[in-house]
Amino acid sequence: MSESSSFLRKINGDLWLVEDERENMKVSYRIKEIIFSRSSPFQHVMILDSYDFGRMLVLDGVVQTTSLDGHIYNEMITHIPLSIHPEPERVLIIGGGDCGAAREVAKYEQVKEIDMVEIDQMVVDVCKEHLPAVSGNLSDPRVQFIFNDGIKHVQAIRNHYDVIIVDSSDPVGPAKALFEQSFYKNIYHALKDDGLMVCQSQSPLFHRSVMKETIGHIRNLFPVCKVYTATVPTYPGGFWSFTLGSRKYRDLCVDDFHKDTKYVNQSILQSCFDLPEFLKIE
Amino acid sequence: MSESSSFLRKINGDLWLVEDERENMKVSYRIKEIIFSRSSPFQHVMILDSYDFGRMLVLDGVVQTTSLDGHIYNEMITHIPLSIHPEPERVLIIGGGDCGAAREVAKYEQVKEIDMVEIDQMVVDVCKEHLPAVSGNLSDPRVQFIFNDGIKHVQAIRNHYDVIIVDSSDPVGPAKALFEQSFYKNIYHALKDDGLMVCQSQSPLFHRSVMKETIGHIRNLFPVCKVYTATVPTYPGGFWSFTLGSRKYRDLCVDDFHKDTKYVNQSILQSCFDLPEFLKIE
Repeated sequence: MSESSSFLRKINGDLWLVEDERENMKVSYRIKEIIFSRSSPFQHVMILDSYDFGRMLVLDGVVQTTSLDGHIYNEMITHIPLSIHPEPERVLIIGGGDCGAAREVAKYEQVKEIDMVEIDQMVVDVCKEHLPAVSGNLSDPRVQFIFNDGIKHVQAIRNHYDVIIVDSSDPVGPAKALFEQSFYKNIYHALKDDGLMVCQSQSPLFHRSVMKETIGHIRNLFPVCKVYTATVPTYPGGFWSFTLGSRKYRDLCVDDFHKDTKYVNQSILQSCFDLPEFLKIE
Repeated sequence: MSESSSFLRKINGDLWLVEDERENMKVSYRIKEIIFSRSSPFQHVMILDSYDFGRMLVLDGVVQTTSLDGHIYNEMITHIPLSIHPEPERVLIIGGGDCGAAREVAKYEQVKEIDMVEIDQMVVDVCKEHLPAVSGNLSDPRVQFIFNDGIKHVQAIRNHYDVIIVDSSDPVGPAKALFEQSFYKNIYHALKDDGLMVCQSQSPLFHRSVMKETIGHIRNLFPVCKVYTATVPTYPGGFWSFTLGSRKYRDLCVDDFHKDTKYVNQSILQSCFDLPEFLKIE
């Protein structure tokens, strides 16, 4: 029996990953091949090659990102804040072990430092090696990997970053503290006076209370708080929210977006803030 | 053993609907209660009460619409065309057995006729009775139910409708013909000189060739062809496309949208046409 056997099942000769994290809805993916499967000190890490989504990063049996749609999430969590801050030079990414966010940030010439604080080095190493559709085999010299707890990192730094990107997993286990007010307070202080931050704030349908709480934390701290959404097919319900908190800048400073992207373009930069009626939070 | 047993499974004492239509990905829903389950002359029809999505319409074991998100699809397939046609009086809905599209169309006072051509009367009857979150217990006197084949209906009518809404299921079995060029040609002729139509054109990720073909058919016939999207959580990947073909009108004629809606608002009317980069079809 391999280590991965508790997450994978053989059904009629086919291999399936059955996501077991949700109580009332389960998604199963037919798998071609197990590319990597091992436990790190923090979690169980797999790269699986699936039929419909290509290669996927799977942590503790839950799909995190896939070759088919990883770019949607990673483009949305990076190009929106980097199109609002007019001079982003120092960028911090908290989490983001798949390296896709760092890959997008590296598309900005004016960015001089990209600090990536990820707790689990194994995730970074396997994504760089086995998930090139998402990581782009990231090798930009401006990226500094810091294998540490993001919470400790922002506690120790003041008035340093232009943009902080919180690319966390779901608020369970170690990522739970990344959804608390004290963490956002430290982020506020780790930013320069005109800095801004963005975080993924979960599904507006299935995690509405987490989303509302996160928006509340950011509103309490930052003079500017804006919510935007994207469709990320591998996340439950496809609908995903991001929340931006800014100490100064409010509007896009880009009117002719041209980066090498598959999802974001000038009109998406603008319309991602147009929320459906039910999603407007007073 | 009940008739529904082939679609439902008992697992550790819980009832689950396991959607079996896709080869490489399966979604299972935990079910509270079977509200209705019977075979019509066309298909097996169920109303199930689920934990995460509330009551759902399930045809041949596949979820069609749910109380949680049915309004998103139904609002998007109706309010967009009805905000582009300046004087919609005669509206035809092909399919739409859940009655949600007709319910939205009935919110327009200037509409005088709403013809709804649905092949399966059982679907209409059970949705009116058991799925009020979607059907709104539709009882508007302007709605005329025609239990017939939509293809035959549009073959026989010329120069009559202002707006035609093709609210079809997936292009398998009887709905297959609703994705063919000859059908759109009949729709073109069933419209008045300044009429317009809209259809659901499937997932841009998982049914890209169907979407491209549908857009091609409509472009071949109509001087105006526009694609828009919405996030519909219960459809695979959440991402869904709609294609509009118009004989004359191109732009929104509404600048202050106020209907009783949960998803559509003025900004969604505009930004739904802002397509992600990968979705632009030359």
